[in-house]
Amino acid sequence: MSGKKRLKLLSPGRIYHVLSAQQFSKSELYGLFELADRIRKIAKTKDGLDFLQSILSHKRAVLYFAQPSTRTYLSFNNACQILGIKTSDMRSAGYSSEVKGESIEDTLETMHSYTDMIIMRHVEENLAEKAALMFNNSDKPIPIVNAGSGPHEHPTQALLDVYTLCRAFKGKVKNKTLAIIGDLKRGRAVRSLVYMLSNFDGIKFVFLSPEELKIPDDIRAYLLNEKISYEESDNLDKYIKKADVFYYTRIQDEYDKQHESKTIDYTTFYLKSALLRQMKPNAVILHPLPRRNEIPPEIDKDQRAWYWKQEVNGLWMRTALIAHIFKEDGYILNYK
Amino acid sequence: MSGKKRLKLLSPGRIYHVLSAQQFSKSELYGLFELADRIRKIAKTKDGLDFLQSILSHKRAVLYFAQPSTRTYLSFNNACQILGIKTSDMRSAGYSSEVKGESIEDTLETMHSYTDMIIMRHVEENLAEKAALMFNNSDKPIPIVNAGSGPHEHPTQALLDVYTLCRAFKGKVKNKTLAIIGDLKRGRAVRSLVYMLSNFDGIKFVFLSPEELKIPDDIRAYLLNEKISYEESDNLDKYIKKADVFYYTRIQDEYDKQHESKTIDYTTFYLKSALLRQMKPNAVILHPLPRRNEIPPEIDKDQRAWYWKQEVNGLWMRTALIAHIFKEDGYILNYK
Amino acid sequence: MSGKKRLKLLSPGRIYHVLSAQQFSKSELYGLFELADRIRKIAKTKDGLDFLQSILSHKRAVLYFAQPSTRTYLSFNNACQILGIKTSDMRSAGYSSEVKGESIEDTLETMHSYTDMIIMRHVEENLAEKAALMFNNSDKPIPIVNAGSGPHEHPTQALLDVYTLCRAFKGKVKNKTLAIIGDLKRGRAVRSLVYMLSNFDGIKFVFLSPEELKIPDDIRAYLLNEKISYEESDNLDKYIKKADVFYYTRIQDEYDKQHESKTIDYTTFYLKSALLRQMKPNAVILHPLPRRNEIPPEIDKDQRAWYWKQEVNGLWMRTALIAHIFKEDGYILNYK
Repeated sequence: MSGKKRLKLLSPGRIYHVLSAQQFSKSELYGLFELADRIRKIAKTKDGLDFLQSILSHKRAVLYFAQPSTRTYLSFNNACQILGIKTSDMRSAGYSSEVKGESIEDTLETMHSYTDMIIMRHVEENLAEKAALMFNNSDKPIPIVNAGSGPHEHPTQALLDVYTLCRAFKGKVKNKTLAIIGDLKRGRAVRSLVYMLSNFDGIKFVFLSPEELKIPDDIRAYLLNEKISYEESDNLDKYIKKADVFYYTRIQDEYDKQHESKTIDYTTFYLKSALLRQMKPNAVILHPLPRRNEIPPEIDKDQRAWYWKQEVNGLWMRTALIAHIFKEDGYILNYK
Repeated sequence: MSGKKRLKLLSPGRIYHVLSAQQFSKSELYGLFELADRIRKIAKTKDGLDFLQSILSHKRAVLYFAQPSTRTYLSFNNACQILGIKTSDMRSAGYSSEVKGESIEDTLETMHSYTDMIIMRHVEENLAEKAALMFNNSDKPIPIVNAGSGPHEHPTQALLDVYTLCRAFKGKVKNKTLAIIGDLKRGRAVRSLVYMLSNFDGIKFVFLSPEELKIPDDIRAYLLNEKISYEESDNLDKYIKKADVFYYTRIQDEYDKQHESKTIDYTTFYLKSALLRQMKPNAVILHPLPRRNEIPPEIDKDQRAWYWKQEVNGLWMRTALIAHIFKEDGYILNYK
Repeated sequence: MSGKKRLKLLSPGRIYHVLSAQQFSKSELYGLFELADRIRKIAKTKDGLDFLQSILSHKRAVLYFAQPSTRTYLSFNNACQILGIKTSDMRSAGYSSEVKGESIEDTLETMHSYTDMIIMRHVEENLAEKAALMFNNSDKPIPIVNAGSGPHEHPTQALLDVYTLCRAFKGKVKNKTLAIIGDLKRGRAVRSLVYMLSNFDGIKFVFLSPEELKIPDDIRAYLLNEKISYEESDNLDKYIKKADVFYYTRIQDEYDKQHESKTIDYTTFYLKSALLRQMKPNAVILHPLPRRNEIPPEIDKDQRAWYWKQEVNGLWMRTALIAHIFKEDGYILNYK
């Protein structure tokens, strides 16, 4: 999508469609983080939760998840429920008119006809942007939230990742070295995270992966263009004492063409107790989850393991994002 | 089902079960149209939507869709949500006790045990009527809404079709020629539409289809009996200037026994720009959707293309229908 | 699970996790029955239902059903709706991150992250207890409700079974002979029922089954240990005049390893009209449902056939149970 087209999709000063991690400015991010912090406080009491549920009680959303999901689906559905939004599921093409030969555009148009927001996960890279353009040109625009577009982007994952870093580093994401580990070639969370972190000063990336799973050229070009410092390596040991953040990902073998992942040795990157002992005491270990064996469960209790808090943050971040989209952030911040 | 049995199912003056397009009188239809118009006005504000949601907040429904659906499912689920009805999904026999060998009657009885309404789509022709009879004989009758019974009937589709015609023709459906095009043999929407339009004066039908997909004998017999004028043809060109309404349908090849649809040439009926230029300026193009190639997307912007408005009308029509079933029409009409 | 571990899971005087039918005391059972009776009365009016929905309007639950279910799923979902709890479905592993290789523990942890209760059906025997332990050790315990654990337990089925007996026998479950019929080897409902009924005095069991489907050794040992009288037989006729309760079950062939159920003759146990005539006039016929042919539908109208009432009782029992878990029983009992 060209810059011009994108601009038209993204109204300045106010997030409407959520399509790419690139669209967020630093001030928007801090605004969302503050809103998420506030919402989770309000949500501590029944009165607070009943207040939150009254805000968007008149809205209806569809959760269109054409790829499997547990946490993204659940956190979005629960975020909608927290704000009183009623949801409908479209989680299997097998139930829908796609089996009758309907085009994806017509299916999206139908969701648009009946609801006020579409939260969508789809393997097609640009489908969310296509939908946003379609509806902007209609007489009833509705927001589109990209909840994962194939191997390409996962902007709300980046939101909760950076929100977690912000909480872990007491409000300041600055001058940090992030080791990003695993399937960097096909991990949509990685691309979105790199985009979003380019808002912050002094961020350095170390991309650690098997040779076959190195970051794609477009990310490399983006970093060069943005003058963001990065290294690539297959040697985790070398960085274990230096990095402030260890962002793990699993092998995304659902995008394999011929089971090529089976021949890749990822075990040398696995987090082991011996490595843990060498990490900085205030390092932050993240993972978008689901994990396989790259982080064994016995690590979970280490205070540097932030991935389960990161998961919980996803609920509040997504609730804040939806509240912002519907312009209810001010109303919430003024509560009590 | 015999006339006597049917009478018992259909309480006069007030729609309860929705089983067939035949059950609606002209005054009932106009009452529903007025109610739908009112509801969509009330729904323009948060106060209005919160009012609507309070009306049936104590009711629970099950959406039992044993055949695939996008728009009928979504519009019914959203209609329930607009009125505050809580819904449960049964959309795949694979999740249900049918895999344990339960009879369909017992499955229906279970839905009846727990909810206040069953909205059902099933391939079996008379299942909705069977359910209605079962529950009428129980100590807790609940309404059954037929959301599509195999190739047989789709009464709520006819409701929204006629509602759309009523809006397109400024409140009067009279003295119109309708070209019905496509798979007339297995299109349940077609049968239901013919039944419902027989309430109105001066309606003429032209059935345009490939030889293999002509209307079944029961529709022909019905039209003769009701003294409704109709023609059958495979020549769309001949009627392109005359018809007031073009009701398109797709080939329903899910009912093929041996892929027989593959040998049928439907392309000669496709709507092309050249044909569009010959149509009356106020002609109305409808389609129950999903479509395949019979109407190309570039037609969508023509002002005579009413099928996306028709889809939206489905939401308000179904909301009105459910409100009527639960006797809340008066309450809604008196709002403000 | 050892007794000690179990004790830690089960806070005395107040049910929190629902893991096994063994955990319920007689006074807890009568408390739940009274609460269920009260709730179904309150639910008779819109005001009452709106009151009930306000109670837990701030809670969210996930229904994790990894095995097929119609009535348990629907009754739990509707019970949640009656109390205002918002629900999310996880009914197919195909939609979830389990297809990406996530461990079941991580999937449970994710549900825990976003919701206030997990209602779960899973083939794994101890998964509900494992989840309860996991969450007890977390900083945010949430209740786990076992809605069926493979062939092992189904405690909420036992609750509604005993509730039904209590209603059938005017409040007193005492000195009764229960014939339990069918697949006693793999029927989880049977084990849970035996556990729960051991609270009551003078209960005698007659286990009637084909040789291949006799009760497993653990139930036999339990009965001996608890000094509860029981017989085993394959002769239904012998007990038809004596038993007060006939609890039927279907063959659970989903647990077959090699279609071994096909060679078992269960027809000699089927309930026939001739047998019905020999039963006590106030006998009670129960079935957890779904049924196959062991009780033909023509029996349904006999006043001794309680299984459809039993099914309805499931809704109110589960509503009462959830209200109790969240400590709202007192509030409900004081209504009006």
